Amino acid sequence: MSKAESNHNGAAESRRPMANLSIGEYLIRRLSDYGIEHLFGIPGDYVLSFYSMLEQSRLKVIGCTREDCAGYAADAYARLHGMGAVCVTYSVGGLSVCNSIAGAYAEKSPVVVISGAPGMNERKNNPLLHHKVRDFRTQLEVFQKVTIDAVELTDPLTAFADIDRALDAADRFKRPVYIELPRDMVHAVPPITHSFRQPTWEPDVKAIDEAAAETAQRLAAAERPVIVAGVELHRFGLQNQLVELAERTQIPIATTILGKSVISEHHPLFVGLYEGAIGRNEVTEFVEQSDLILLLGTFMTDINLGIYTANLDLDKCVYATSEALQISHHHFHNVALGEFLDRLNSLDLKPTTRTIPDEITFHRDREPFEIEPTAPLRISRLMSRLNTCLDLDTVVIADVGDALFAATELVTHDRGEFLSPAYYTSMGFSVPAAVGAAAARPDHRVVVLVGDGAFQMTGCELSTLVRNGCSPIVIVLDNHGYGTERYLQAGDWEYNEIQPWAYHKMPELLGGGKGFLVDTEAEFDAALSAAWDDRSQPTIIQARLVENDASETLKRLGQRMGEKVAGR
Amino acid sequence: MSKAESNHNGAAESRRPMANLSIGEYLIRRLSDYGIEHLFGIPGDYVLSFYSMLEQSRLKVIGCTREDCAGYAADAYARLHGMGAVCVTYSVGGLSVCNSIAGAYAEKSPVVVISGAPGMNERKNNPLLHHKVRDFRTQLEVFQKVTIDAVELTDPLTAFADIDRALDAADRFKRPVYIELPRDMVHAVPPITHSFRQPTWEPDVKAIDEAAAETAQRLAAAERPVIVAGVELHRFGLQNQLVELAERTQIPIATTILGKSVISEHHPLFVGLYEGAIGRNEVTEFVEQSDLILLLGTFMTDINLGIYTANLDLDKCVYATSEALQISHHHFHNVALGEFLDRLNSLDLKPTTRTIPDEITFHRDREPFEIEPTAPLRISRLMSRLNTCLDLDTVVIADVGDALFAATELVTHDRGEFLSPAYYTSMGFSVPAAVGAAAARPDHRVVVLVGDGAFQMTGCELSTLVRNGCSPIVIVLDNHGYGTERYLQAGDWEYNEIQPWAYHKMPELLGGGKGFLVDTEAEFDAALSAAWDDRSQPTIIQARLVENDASETLKRLGQRMGEKVAGR
Repeated sequence: MSKAESNHNGAAESRRPMANLSIGEYLIRRLSDYGIEHLFGIPGDYVLSFYSMLEQSRLKVIGCTREDCAGYAADAYARLHGMGAVCVTYSVGGLSVCNSIAGAYAEKSPVVVISGAPGMNERKNNPLLHHKVRDFRTQLEVFQKVTIDAVELTDPLTAFADIDRALDAADRFKRPVYIELPRDMVHAVPPITHSFRQPTWEPDVKAIDEAAAETAQRLAAAERPVIVAGVELHRFGLQNQLVELAERTQIPIATTILGKSVISEHHPLFVGLYEGAIGRNEVTEFVEQSDLILLLGTFMTDINLGIYTANLDLDKCVYATSEALQISHHHFHNVALGEFLDRLNSLDLKPTTRTIPDEITFHRDREPFEIEPTAPLRISRLMSRLNTCLDLDTVVIADVGDALFAATELVTHDRGEFLSPAYYTSMGFSVPAAVGAAAARPDHRVVVLVGDGAFQMTGCELSTLVRNGCSPIVIVLDNHGYGTERYLQAGDWEYNEIQPWAYHKMPELLGGGKGFLVDTEAEFDAALSAAWDDRSQPTIIQARLVENDASETLKRLGQRMGEKVAGR
Repeated sequence: MSKAESNHNGAAESRRPMANLSIGEYLIRRLSDYGIEHLFGIPGDYVLSFYSMLEQSRLKVIGCTREDCAGYAADAYARLHGMGAVCVTYSVGGLSVCNSIAGAYAEKSPVVVISGAPGMNERKNNPLLHHKVRDFRTQLEVFQKVTIDAVELTDPLTAFADIDRALDAADRFKRPVYIELPRDMVHAVPPITHSFRQPTWEPDVKAIDEAAAETAQRLAAAERPVIVAGVELHRFGLQNQLVELAERTQIPIATTILGKSVISEHHPLFVGLYEGAIGRNEVTEFVEQSDLILLLGTFMTDINLGIYTANLDLDKCVYATSEALQISHHHFHNVALGEFLDRLNSLDLKPTTRTIPDEITFHRDREPFEIEPTAPLRISRLMSRLNTCLDLDTVVIADVGDALFAATELVTHDRGEFLSPAYYTSMGFSVPAAVGAAAARPDHRVVVLVGDGAFQMTGCELSTLVRNGCSPIVIVLDNHGYGTERYLQAGDWEYNEIQPWAYHKMPELLGGGKGFLVDTEAEFDAALSAAWDDRSQPTIIQARLVENDASETLKRLGQRMGEKVAGR
């Protein structure tokens, strides 16, 4: 693991005296230091004593229906709030959040997994305690694979330092960490005085200077520069630096699909999403015809890059992330992304004169949406209608599939308020993520876009939103089946069909919320307006789409991926 | 891992010619050899080509709503059918079945996990393909922790032998295995001729002879012998040997909670469930006052043994499992459970004369159930009513919590037809398990007992039962919250409360099935009768229980566990 950004929030707070705190109390205090106000999870006997301690603390635990949903909620909370936490019981709880946490790892979301465990005094002779899989380290070993740090608080002498180290790693690398808390350690008070030491990391100042100077030189020489901004700018809180750099140099900005909304899409320098050959042609050409491409905080993933159809010439690239910095074919080590941007902004940079062609920005200035009342619903028209509602106080969460692909057509107003598992692409992220988003942004309106297949995975988490008095708008894009796969694998396969649910009746099951079933533009329009006016409860809109409807992005993706999927 | 039973089914079949089979075709054929007719799973792009091959094969894939549910379904299918399989896509699918597979590992259920993966030709330069967590071995390494064997089919030269080895391990050890299939290997045809070789294992015949002789000697001397029969007798198909041994020697049989229904509970030698101090007093005393205790295929788990309150004197025990054989304080190695039982049965064993006291068998001969029509529902009365329905063609699946504890009062008629995750205790097992049970036993009636908390985790899998025309009876034991925890942790904790769903309205959401809401004995009686007569669709009965109702077993458990849970 290479060096990454360091973010010192929490350090000052934690210099308060730690005398006589138990391990559980110290953990709660340190979570608070990092700004955590909510945890997500499900109680279970190995974690009950810590749950009771949490319930008596200032932190609020939001109980979910399933552990994996709690993991998604904590992930969304972390993306919007800086750090998140999920608290579960041993094995049956912990191993149920593996996938959610793997997604947080892949997409750099700092989620703290806290798992209860059998007490140390119960483990003599390796007994077969319930929930045990193989031995008492099995769960820890699994989490070592999907987190950046995994600790067991088995010894009061080292527990506080282990907590410090794990939380610092989550904050520094923006990856999940795992903390295992045996139940007889919750109330244990270490017999020593603990003084918190902020781990430090020294960047290579000379490498930063040289990299910034070389970049500035290339900028001065470039005629057609572009910035491709990625999600790390949001994760590491570097959006101001991005805007400063772009505005001073007047360089146009594209974002990746995972980085969508890292900058307001109404910014005059914003040109659109760069997704290689699956994106809009105008944007693809604009980026690929550049003579200098600043890739900032961008994951070079297949989805981000349009399933490898992106055509980026490394000779023309400056590629800076939290983990690595590369210019053309040479590398700089120990260069943090934030420090690189700060250094670059401190230099004397001249504005470039690259103009943004009109056709590229049409999506911002396009014709006002005009409803065709009796027209059957199509996903891209639905997005156009939704676009008219979005404002500074909206958080949009797009699930995997055409919910995501079509949502690339939305124009977001604020930074970082479009969430999607666009790289790890785990179906079922969105409804549970709304639980986390609602906690992190109580004053915002959360809009969920989710396919019917993804909704069947985790849609019941709407229950938690009802229970907590939230008012998200959940739009189920109903194409009765795994619609994306129909475009990936030629043929008429039964495995893409699913049971057709009456999604709009969910509120009757859950005892709260309001449901709508819509087939036409007028019906969708009415339902969306009613939902927008109702802040008292969740709304679920079952939007039945025209047979075989798909966004243009999905159609392009299908063409590109078909061959790989067939495995030939 | 010590040696375990070998079961040679599948070996003869597989001697058919293997010429020109692709890796995918060979895998399908070998699964069939082990009797697998159904797989469970969810498609995803890395596994689509194999899904298409499956859909064109004789195997039937039952699509579930979520991967973890597919894992539970495959587990239940394996318990009833000998081996099960779940087929999922990479990471987002695979890591979602971790917990289900860990449960199958802990409780010895042979489930084959088949995961798609990126093609070998896509992996050059370690690209960031979607669904990837850390590197291309992350998922394999996770499954190494929760399976008995994990293989990647990355090389056509070794793929067939790897498949053989993994399936043999699943069959031999009754544990899950993991097979990773890169999508460009599905159609690959190995350039060599493969001849299947059944792995062999040689037991230690002299050790078996000595152990059997010593056991026979102790039997001859014993005045009050008892057998405690465990779930392995069912897993390894040794129930006939158990009955033969018991009937020849006239030794009474108790079973553990995990082994419940390993023998028909109407058998005259059956005395009840032995659960240490949380079980019925008469059974506990009967077992603990024995002068010879044959523990056969029993896991010494905390739940099985009543949270360590069991009082078994090792001096008096013969403890034989598939993994180990111990008499008093000495051990025999390489002694398979089946061969030990066969050898014991071949000896000249005299019947003992221990009588079974009347009071111990009262539960079989108790007064006929008489309904109290207006009485509010209590869980133990509900079980008594249900008992009147059970017959040879019923499979009962009990979820974790009081559903399980109260279900210990049921008297099963046939062998192996009571399923519960009684050791690993993963909530949410039961409804998805019904999908597997319905496939494995299409002519049986499946009855699911599930608490409201567990139902909220996976109850939507009822969807798959509707879709496949099954007719299970799902009884939701509604005590509005995590009822078991209320007995484990003193105090009135908010974390035990959950959103009250109208479970009986589930059929309206799912578009199939029939729902009942019942509060009294008469209402439950009517609903159960109607359900029993209707083989056309699933029935869900929301049984609202009296406030703070609990089975006697749960109350005893709460008393015993409270101290550990508090972590003091």
